[in-house]
Amino acid sequence: DEVWEVVEEHHLEGTYAFEDFRDALEFTYEVGELAEEEWHHPDLHLQWGEVRVEMWTHKIDGLHKSDFVMAARMDRIHDDYAPE
Amino acid sequence: DEVWEVVEEHHLEGTYAFEDFRDALEFTYEVGELAEEEWHHPDLHLQWGEVRVEMWTHKIDGLHKSDFVMAARMDRIHDDYAPE
Repeated sequence: DEVWEVVEEHHLEGTYAFEDFRDALEFTYEVGELAEEEWHHPDLHLQWGEVRVEMWTHKIDGLHKSDFVMAARMDRIHDDYAPE
Repeated sequence: DEVWEVVEEHHLEGTYAFEDFRDALEFTYEVGELAEEEWHHPDLHLQWGEVRVEMWTHKIDGLHKSDFVMAARMDRIHDDYAPE
C-alpha cells in the first residue's frame, strides 16, 4: 500500500486515484460519513479523478494510532472504487 | 457577497464557512452533484467547518461566464447552511 506517507512526523498524507469526478465525490462522502462515526475528521481535497487526504490528531497535534486505523479503513473503502 | 475572488486573472477561489464538519460535507456533496449536472467540476477542499473552492474552465485555461454562474449557484446552496 503506497497511498500514505508520514509528513514531518506530524501528519499522514495520502492520494487516492479514481476513474472520474463521480467516484471521487462518492468516496469523499463515504469517508466523511466514517469521519463523523469515528469523530475523527481528515481534510479532504476532491478534484476530478483524485482525493488527497491530510489527517492528524488535533488534540496531540500529531499522529495517534487512530490515524493509522482511519487510513486503513479508507484504503478498504477505496478498494470499491479503484480503477481496474 | 465576499466569498469569491479572481486569482491571477485565471481562476475563482472562494471559501465557505459552516457550523461543523457535517454541514461542510453535505455542501460538498450538493456542489458535487451540481458539478456533474453542469459538467463543470471545481476543486473542493473540505475540512471541519470550511469548504474552499477553486474553479476555472479547463478548455480555455481561464475564466468563462459559466464559472461565475456556478459560483452564484454555490452561493445559493450555501444559503441553506450558513451559520445564523
